[in-house]
Amino acid sequence: MDKFNFTLMCDFYELTMANGYFESEMKDKICYFDVFYRTVPDNGGFAIAAGLDIVIDYIKNLHFNDEEVAFLRKKNCFSEQFLEYLKTFRFTGDIYAMKEGTPVFPKEPIMIVKSNAIEAQFIETYVLSVINHSSLIATKANRIVRASAQHPISEFGARRAHGPLSATLGARAAFIGGCTSTSNVLTDYLYGVPASGTMAHSWVQMFDSEYQAFETYCKVYPDNVVLLVDTYNILKSGVPNAIKAFNNVLKPMGKRPKAIRLDSGDIAYQSNKAREMLDAAGYSDCKIVASNSLDEYIIRDLFFQGAKVDSFGVGERMITSKNSPVFDGVYKLVAVEKDGEVIPKIKISENVEKITTPHFKKVYRLIAKDTNKAIADLITVYDEEAPCGEIEIFDPEAAWKRKTIDNYYVQELLVPIVLNGEIVYETPSMQDIQNYCKGEVKKLWDEVKRFENPHNYYVDLSQRLWDIKQDLLKNANKQGKVK
Amino acid sequence: MDKFNFTLMCDFYELTMANGYFESEMKDKICYFDVFYRTVPDNGGFAIAAGLDIVIDYIKNLHFNDEEVAFLRKKNCFSEQFLEYLKTFRFTGDIYAMKEGTPVFPKEPIMIVKSNAIEAQFIETYVLSVINHSSLIATKANRIVRASAQHPISEFGARRAHGPLSATLGARAAFIGGCTSTSNVLTDYLYGVPASGTMAHSWVQMFDSEYQAFETYCKVYPDNVVLLVDTYNILKSGVPNAIKAFNNVLKPMGKRPKAIRLDSGDIAYQSNKAREMLDAAGYSDCKIVASNSLDEYIIRDLFFQGAKVDSFGVGERMITSKNSPVFDGVYKLVAVEKDGEVIPKIKISENVEKITTPHFKKVYRLIAKDTNKAIADLITVYDEEAPCGEIEIFDPEAAWKRKTIDNYYVQELLVPIVLNGEIVYETPSMQDIQNYCKGEVKKLWDEVKRFENPHNYYVDLSQRLWDIKQDLLKNANKQGKVK
Repeated sequence: MDKFNFTLMCDFYELTMANGYFESEMKDKICYFDVFYRTVPDNGGFAIAAGLDIVIDYIKNLHFNDEEVAFLRKKNCFSEQFLEYLKTFRFTGDIYAMKEGTPVFPKEPIMIVKSNAIEAQFIETYVLSVINHSSLIATKANRIVRASAQHPISEFGARRAHGPLSATLGARAAFIGGCTSTSNVLTDYLYGVPASGTMAHSWVQMFDSEYQAFETYCKVYPDNVVLLVDTYNILKSGVPNAIKAFNNVLKPMGKRPKAIRLDSGDIAYQSNKAREMLDAAGYSDCKIVASNSLDEYIIRDLFFQGAKVDSFGVGERMITSKNSPVFDGVYKLVAVEKDGEVIPKIKISENVEKITTPHFKKVYRLIAKDTNKAIADLITVYDEEAPCGEIEIFDPEAAWKRKTIDNYYVQELLVPIVLNGEIVYETPSMQDIQNYCKGEVKKLWDEVKRFENPHNYYVDLSQRLWDIKQDLLKNANKQGKVK
Repeated sequence: MDKFNFTLMCDFYELTMANGYFESEMKDKICYFDVFYRTVPDNGGFAIAAGLDIVIDYIKNLHFNDEEVAFLRKKNCFSEQFLEYLKTFRFTGDIYAMKEGTPVFPKEPIMIVKSNAIEAQFIETYVLSVINHSSLIATKANRIVRASAQHPISEFGARRAHGPLSATLGARAAFIGGCTSTSNVLTDYLYGVPASGTMAHSWVQMFDSEYQAFETYCKVYPDNVVLLVDTYNILKSGVPNAIKAFNNVLKPMGKRPKAIRLDSGDIAYQSNKAREMLDAAGYSDCKIVASNSLDEYIIRDLFFQGAKVDSFGVGERMITSKNSPVFDGVYKLVAVEKDGEVIPKIKISENVEKITTPHFKKVYRLIAKDTNKAIADLITVYDEEAPCGEIEIFDPEAAWKRKTIDNYYVQELLVPIVLNGEIVYETPSMQDIQNYCKGEVKKLWDEVKRFENPHNYYVDLSQRLWDIKQDLLKNANKQGKVK
């Protein structure tokens, strides 16, 4: 991704604030920002964190070239010293983040950025645009993959994505969520997500007859025959012509077809009839692929109705997360350093759910040793001991609801990614990220994975962090006070 | 945009089909594809065509480098001759398209691509991903701009866009739809859409007090003061602290503040109270900007309730077209050439609304001379005469509904963009595109512009084109027939 220079993909106010910090001698002030989200897309029980590797590439490459600085100079609102400073600007701070593929719950940090005021502020817009988008698509893909059980899902949505890079990074995120392949060649080229595909309706239309189109395809690709059978009429022409091409072209070569694809009509009915026809013709090993505006609900219903589909191609509803196309991740100041001490900061709001949890934090997932299922996440202050032995946890929004737990092990969810500007994290292979995601989702109870009305997973604060938050809430008025 | 190489942002099947055409001696077959859409987002009456300039950049730059060809070789499914051919591959065909900013209705071509089978097929995925995304956002922005009447709308959505390029091209499309500015600096840098912005909540939190944050900002940017007043309490601290900073810092310098910004709470109530306080303090020239999950419906309601807002910042609901995040543009084969003759092609479907209109076409908008309002669009075969004088038009889905019109002038909507691979179209300035869009939308009756349940605008076929379509429909079974 080095060839994409997105340094200027920032909100203008990141630059006015940066120049403001520079001019008011606050540029070296160390601050801590949390990235977290508030609402699970599709009213689900959790999201899948994704996009970290894209952020790492950005951090590595972050710099202003002369042309960009000259462009900013013309805005006539930045000091010359600040513009000079931008010429050698790099990210020199620390980033901690959840690994890609981690199930993440509302209000817990997916990422923590610690750096001087200018650097930490500047990267906000890019970081959010990537984490929000990738997590959105990974989350949606994971829902769809869970609905299809063991039947492979291929990502097919490039043409309906929000532009070419959204298509490319979206396909990568969909793989993290569990898709087995994509139609997008660039995602394969850049990230090694396997791309596949065979023919569109235009191939069939391009020939004088459907049979001729199928015959030609079988001759060119005898080892990878997937025929699209719905250009004219699935059962009256598509499937019979496919079988005829299998018999005439593949059989004499000793080859077997891979699949037929249905892209319109009633998939439950058509797949059953097509299955019967293929079986009767001796092609019970020929699979049936279905596509056409699918999502987790339709796929669940198709199996409920006995559809004979072996795998699915899923397009627009996954690549745009159509029912829920916004992942509402935010980037909030949670602490600053003063004389070497970490001072927690809070953001008040008239909307109570928008009040932030202050401080530099750690996040632990507590997992029962007997079931290997996650019990709760616990957020602590950065310098607290990791939980161990019998502990009491409580709901931060209903502090009287308390529960004692024991016999668990802990996973620390935020790992160091960048320290003093150096990347210290090695991104796993895409397959390893997908496997990790699958393993972590397996640790969640089915109740948390329900598509609608899932069980509310516990994300608790340590007593110390809760006390600090309450203190800050009581004293918040002072900062706003008109003196 | 030359620095983004998106050649491989294609569906894998574009390449398998391309290699298939190459191998079956069909690579020089001239074909015609239409780009058109079926459903207006948000149940509106029309869409705004956008994205053409991005497609032009892609066409200019389209080529495979050695590394990409080597990557494809490893797939073991393309012939060596085909891979050699890719090394000198360029787009050498013709493209006709509606200018960016043109109101476009379902089922009429936004773009026509004429080229050999490989080139015309190959560009499908990229073209759709761009036209679909840009048209989606331009359409949504235009709705929001119409709701706000003369009050400027600034695009603020980068962090919630589907990744960094979606943010950047989305902001460009939003400007076409009528937004006056964006927060995205890269959109300014690349396309000259004016970027602006002042401060986030983190600026206010970074200081020991809200007043200190405001005071510092006024000192650094005395000519561009827009203060965010909702970090603690809008009316008890934000507005009073803002007024105090105006008095203490700006007044002695003889400067005036530009605005305050409200980003939470009830905007109707808060804006009225804030207006009173500013007026009473002698700042009736200080404007009020509102943001926070706005869209066309909320903005319309805010004015209905007497909100005192001068301009809006609109984020996630515009940059993702949240209620309707899919623009369903398709790319369909409509004709091929055989012995120099254009042979129309049709795509049948079990879903009647998915049947395509065949042939190489022209699209005319008929505009009444007396009102300067558009009466209907007329789609004809490419070699028909432009309509003139008294003509009878009819609804292609209800051919008995006929209407005679006279006293109109015609606009031909599809203009040549690329001829024989050469760009022959000069993209207007962004401001000119925005002005053109505004002028063309003005030609539509208010009934067509209604947000819900708009009047159905007429998109009619010429008698000749309708007859050709009916003939092809009758004969379509023959192509699918199992011989």
